[in-house]
Amino acid sequence: MSSCIFCAIVEGTAPGRIVYSDDEVVGFLDIRPVTRGHTLLVPRIHSSGLDDLDPARGAALFRAGQRLATAMKRGPLAADGVNIALNDGRAAFQTVFHTHLHVVPRRAGDKLSFAKGFVVRRDPDPDETAELLRASLEAAG
Amino acid sequence: MSSCIFCAIVEGTAPGRIVYSDDEVVGFLDIRPVTRGHTLLVPRIHSSGLDDLDPARGAALFRAGQRLATAMKRGPLAADGVNIALNDGRAAFQTVFHTHLHVVPRRAGDKLSFAKGFVVRRDPDPDETAELLRASLEAAG
Ligand SMILES: [Zn+2]
Ligand SMILES: [Zn+2]
Repeated sequence: MSSCIFCAIVEGTAPGRIVYSDDEVVGFLDIRPVTRGHTLLVPRIHSSGLDDLDPARGAALFRAGQRLATAMKRGPLAADGVNIALNDGRAAFQTVFHTHLHVVPRRAGDKLSFAKGFVVRRDPDPDETAELLRASLEAAG
Repeated sequence: MSSCIFCAIVEGTAPGRIVYSDDEVVGFLDIRPVTRGHTLLVPRIHSSGLDDLDPARGAALFRAGQRLATAMKRGPLAADGVNIALNDGRAAFQTVFHTHLHVVPRRAGDKLSFAKGFVVRRDPDPDETAELLRASLEAAG
């Protein structure tokens, strides 16, 4: 098993609720979601941050983020907006040193629950959430 | 002059401190920076958000973000980390409806001034900041 938890999830040797997969990128639910559906997209090939991320892989990562954002809005999660964020370096709140893009679905008027989400970070039914996201992505084609 | 302020900055008909430019993307200082050097990268071609952003342009936008982040760290701003963020939709705090990527340089231990920056959002010398960023990008090649 890889010493990097995200590499281990990509390899399937650590558990993760996978919602997205393409040749370059894997996406799984954040285990401490700020909102329901909060997903982390990671390049399959390990890099620690932006400095050692191959730019073509970075582009693929962003493309996946755009695709997932659309699915979050069109699918049953019915997001009204989406925050995409990449925290590069400890000073920027990066905690796992395998490059990852946060994709966070938002609802109109969720400002307070969004703020609370930063503290609570819990999804009562992550399996259902993952299923809804997979279905959204399939529907989006 | 375009009715979109970011299109106007790209066209040069509205003022902006341009720090980055390539075939697809223009970058300028956020007039209300969260930290010193906070830059907005925008596609030259107008799109309102992620839904109508051409994926190839999105990839170019992220590439520019990665390049700028490296320059922020290697150059005189001496960033220890960088936050990259894209807010898509009013529900996700988007306020200008021309797709833009925030690139925010961070310093170790700046958590409090970062939080304060969300309220204050002022750079005492933005011209010097822009000059430092341009020099960083030139040095990075
Ligand atoms: Zn890894
Ligand atoms: Zn515009």
